Amino acid sequence: MTTTDLMPTRDLRFLLEEVHGLGDLLTADRYAHTDLDTLRSVLDLARDVAHDVFLPLAPKLDAEEPTLADGRVTVPEGTKTAVGAFVEAGFQATSFSLEDGGMQLPAMITEAVLAFFSAASAPVVSYPALAMAAAGMLRAHGSEELRQRYLAPMIEGRWFGTMALSEPQAGSSLADLTTAARPADDGTYRLVGNKMWITAADHDLTENIVHFVLARIEGAPAGTRGISLFLVPKILPDGTHNDVRVVGLNHKLGYRPAANTVFAIGDQGGAVGWLVGEPHQGLRCMFHMMNEARIAVGLSASAMGWAGYRHSLRYARERLQGRPLTSKDPTSPQVPLTEHADVRRLLLSQKALAEGGLALALWAARLVDEGRVAADRGDDATAGQLAMLLDVVTPIVKGWCSHYGVAANDEAIQVHGGYGYTRDYAVERIWRDNRLNPIHEGTNGIQAMDLLGRKVGAGQGAAAMLLMARLQDGIARGRAAGPVASALAGELAVAVERLATTTTTLLLGAPKDPAAFLANATPYLHLAGHTVVAWLWLEQVLAAEPGAEGDAFLRGKLAAARYFYRWELPRTAHWASLLAPIDRTPLDTDPDDL
Amino acid sequence: MTTTDLMPTRDLRFLLEEVHGLGDLLTADRYAHTDLDTLRSVLDLARDVAHDVFLPLAPKLDAEEPTLADGRVTVPEGTKTAVGAFVEAGFQATSFSLEDGGMQLPAMITEAVLAFFSAASAPVVSYPALAMAAAGMLRAHGSEELRQRYLAPMIEGRWFGTMALSEPQAGSSLADLTTAARPADDGTYRLVGNKMWITAADHDLTENIVHFVLARIEGAPAGTRGISLFLVPKILPDGTHNDVRVVGLNHKLGYRPAANTVFAIGDQGGAVGWLVGEPHQGLRCMFHMMNEARIAVGLSASAMGWAGYRHSLRYARERLQGRPLTSKDPTSPQVPLTEHADVRRLLLSQKALAEGGLALALWAARLVDEGRVAADRGDDATAGQLAMLLDVVTPIVKGWCSHYGVAANDEAIQVHGGYGYTRDYAVERIWRDNRLNPIHEGTNGIQAMDLLGRKVGAGQGAAAMLLMARLQDGIARGRAAGPVASALAGELAVAVERLATTTTTLLLGAPKDPAAFLANATPYLHLAGHTVVAWLWLEQVLAAEPGAEGDAFLRGKLAAARYFYRWELPRTAHWASLLAPIDRTPLDTDPDDL
Repeated sequence: MTTTDLMPTRDLRFLLEEVHGLGDLLTADRYAHTDLDTLRSVLDLARDVAHDVFLPLAPKLDAEEPTLADGRVTVPEGTKTAVGAFVEAGFQATSFSLEDGGMQLPAMITEAVLAFFSAASAPVVSYPALAMAAAGMLRAHGSEELRQRYLAPMIEGRWFGTMALSEPQAGSSLADLTTAARPADDGTYRLVGNKMWITAADHDLTENIVHFVLARIEGAPAGTRGISLFLVPKILPDGTHNDVRVVGLNHKLGYRPAANTVFAIGDQGGAVGWLVGEPHQGLRCMFHMMNEARIAVGLSASAMGWAGYRHSLRYARERLQGRPLTSKDPTSPQVPLTEHADVRRLLLSQKALAEGGLALALWAARLVDEGRVAADRGDDATAGQLAMLLDVVTPIVKGWCSHYGVAANDEAIQVHGGYGYTRDYAVERIWRDNRLNPIHEGTNGIQAMDLLGRKVGAGQGAAAMLLMARLQDGIARGRAAGPVASALAGELAVAVERLATTTTTLLLGAPKDPAAFLANATPYLHLAGHTVVAWLWLEQVLAAEPGAEGDAFLRGKLAAARYFYRWELPRTAHWASLLAPIDRTPLDTDPDDL
Repeated sequence: MTTTDLMPTRDLRFLLEEVHGLGDLLTADRYAHTDLDTLRSVLDLARDVAHDVFLPLAPKLDAEEPTLADGRVTVPEGTKTAVGAFVEAGFQATSFSLEDGGMQLPAMITEAVLAFFSAASAPVVSYPALAMAAAGMLRAHGSEELRQRYLAPMIEGRWFGTMALSEPQAGSSLADLTTAARPADDGTYRLVGNKMWITAADHDLTENIVHFVLARIEGAPAGTRGISLFLVPKILPDGTHNDVRVVGLNHKLGYRPAANTVFAIGDQGGAVGWLVGEPHQGLRCMFHMMNEARIAVGLSASAMGWAGYRHSLRYARERLQGRPLTSKDPTSPQVPLTEHADVRRLLLSQKALAEGGLALALWAARLVDEGRVAADRGDDATAGQLAMLLDVVTPIVKGWCSHYGVAANDEAIQVHGGYGYTRDYAVERIWRDNRLNPIHEGTNGIQAMDLLGRKVGAGQGAAAMLLMARLQDGIARGRAAGPVASALAGELAVAVERLATTTTTLLLGAPKDPAAFLANATPYLHLAGHTVVAWLWLEQVLAAEPGAEGDAFLRGKLAAARYFYRWELPRTAHWASLLAPIDRTPLDTDPDDL
């Protein structure tokens, strides 16, 4: 029986090095200070801290929610231990530039590090991850003064940060947020409002918390064009407490270690805030961060899908139950669950969905990296194209990975049978944690409308063409490669043609009936996502097929790719049939008839 | 805005009376003592007790698990209140004959009553429901002496019962159970063994608990042919405690109010048990009960799907968020979630899956009723055919309803957005409760193998023909009816042809390669289930179309039927493609490669 590692580093290294060409990327000047061996060490360390520190604490922290007293949130000791180990190891600094005191590593590495921690406990790592995102926004949009004051402690992990967008009446509809900002005489603002769903708005992990708050400056236009971004620290520069206070904790299905709060800003007269970026441009600044957050959500969701796969694979290898259909002798010993074809189906499905999703999210990270390298060398045309492609890919990463990551986790429970339904095994917790991902950072319905309504048609269809070009390139290389790759490339060509035709039909028809155009955006996201992930499975086959004969790991890649092409890719035909012509059933149903 | 009833009685009455002809059934002698008005009163009462007593207690009982001390389980007061109200109203007696002190109501009514309680709190109603199943088995297989002693108090709800099948090493593989039974001098047995996953093996709801235990008589053959059934009461006839003891509680993802236990039998020397039925025939007796339990599981799962639908419909009607795509004026008021096409899709999908599943499970109950009526009049041929058809339908009801009931609940969470992820709303609890249903009473993988491997090919294909005849009959009536029905009938004809062809191909090929035949049993279950549910949506359209113009409820039925045919039924093409020719990917994957 094979020993089952819950977090094999090779799974990530294969994707980074063999599939996504990490080595090539390192030839860029921006990475001259590092090398492949160093990056491998970073990954190994991430795997060890995640596996040895986070994973054992995860069940206990799931059962022990943060508490609130007098407006202050206290987290359990275990969260402090785990987050402390993360910061101690320096992971906070991976994505920041050398000049800012960071490690200036590729985004692919930052995401791969996050994958290990998400597989161990996504809610626990959300504290430093949120701080990294907040620091990134400060770096991109904050004034010199604000950066001087806040950036270093955030990159060092001494201060954490939050994103305060939603309000009770304004979740998906940020246009309706009402938090108000009044200019003060000294150039700062006084903010008053109620925020909802704010993760880590208070905790006792760090001495200060740097909140990024969306609010309306008095007299600003209604809607999204009147929203500004403010930096609102918990502790003011003079050492006093700002007027911010957690007034409630949300008690959730999962993600319980991450304190999710009802956050009162300025209810004692007004919280002091500093404008970040230009007035009324807050949503634009926030979306810059949110796009990275959406990639991270997708990555994390697939990492949790992967974790569920590894847990259920280990269980299926160890659990003896039943006999093969061809051997009904009841005195013969029971066999491992993996001997049953239907259990293998559940395992292959998880592997195909989770590792396909990881490949997708890491590809998005690679596009970020390529964009930075292009910008470094002043190649604005390439950087612009990469940004446009990334814009298309981002909602797919967020929506597809979170939908199918959760679906994979459901299968992990099923492999465990009754045991999987108990809190003694990790898989139900992983499912509960992962179920947040289709909801937060823009629901998957929003992602689908973003993809179809804004992104894929950008540049008069240029964005869609950029994606198609990548898929066609994969098909061409696949056709010229080994027998498995060339067979799959042929099937992919059909699916890509279908996606292209559907996209064109939709975009051409959009002006005539915008509501119908977007009514079935969700199946469009599935159609696009499955096609792109099929391509990324072809890329994995291209990397795996030459050495597969003597290598179980590589043979597993071929099996999962075959599974995806046989069991998943054909579903695209159905989704396409709902889009051209557009099915109008939900659109035309009177809500009063429901 | 429409007021949203969480448990509208009309939903069930429509299925019972308009779709499944409850009125016709009542012309049988067996129901001469009752009438439609009486049955409607029973339903109204069930709805009221479920809605007014069970539903408000459900969140609290979910958070307050039963406790174990000194081998005895204590349930919270709320469980006692709810179960007491159920017993007080007499629901325990609905399915038993008048001569046994029961109400002798149709199985359709017993299931419809269960639907209301499952929609309110499935785990709480599981206590009396299990007792009803146990009493039914006692009635069918117990000796005169045992029935005299135990039946009346069980039907009156004074004593409850359990089914003790699984053991730690024998879950799906009952062939491997090891609990031993040694004959005593007085004709009783002494039982020793460890049982696992036993729901309600102890509690303080009733003074006695009547356990039905599977065990091996000393010297019995290995495997399933050596298993006998025993009645093992908690309190012996002389008033002393039997040697049975709960030694652990399983802490579960959901279904928390139902005490699920590790149950030690005879660890102080041997528990006293009475043989039920013939020696070594225990599994046959148990399967008699288990088939009814599987229909109840499917029914309950769809009822929970329905509950999630109603909760999310209410939320979507009340929650204001965003604006129509055609009206972007940010100063205009926000609109209800139901105005967004993608939310309507999520609602229609739930409605189509849940109400389709209810129609399916109630149809199975109707087959039970028809079988009883046929047996009453000595028509063994009809009764035999109905039993054979019910055998085919049962794994579909259990597997399909539980799979898609959970899927619907996932959509209910999504409609609620961030709120649905909190424990302040019912939908996450309903999902957690429902997630048990694809696992217990035989996992859905087992159901699929039962359907394809045993049931559909029974009688050399006669069983499949019986099902096809029902589907064809619906198609014929559909073609002759209104425009919606006739259009759907045409689509159904294609799907039924596909199912028939696939079934024939599979059954003919089975002897050549039994392992391949069953490797893809799961997509076969989905293929068969979707086709049968499509037929049941056609039946709903046949009942709804004539009056739909002036009736929102009936228009909703047409909308959900259209949705099922457009968005769900076409998926059968993909499943069929995995079956003929049989895809061998999971079968041929070496588990060591995973």
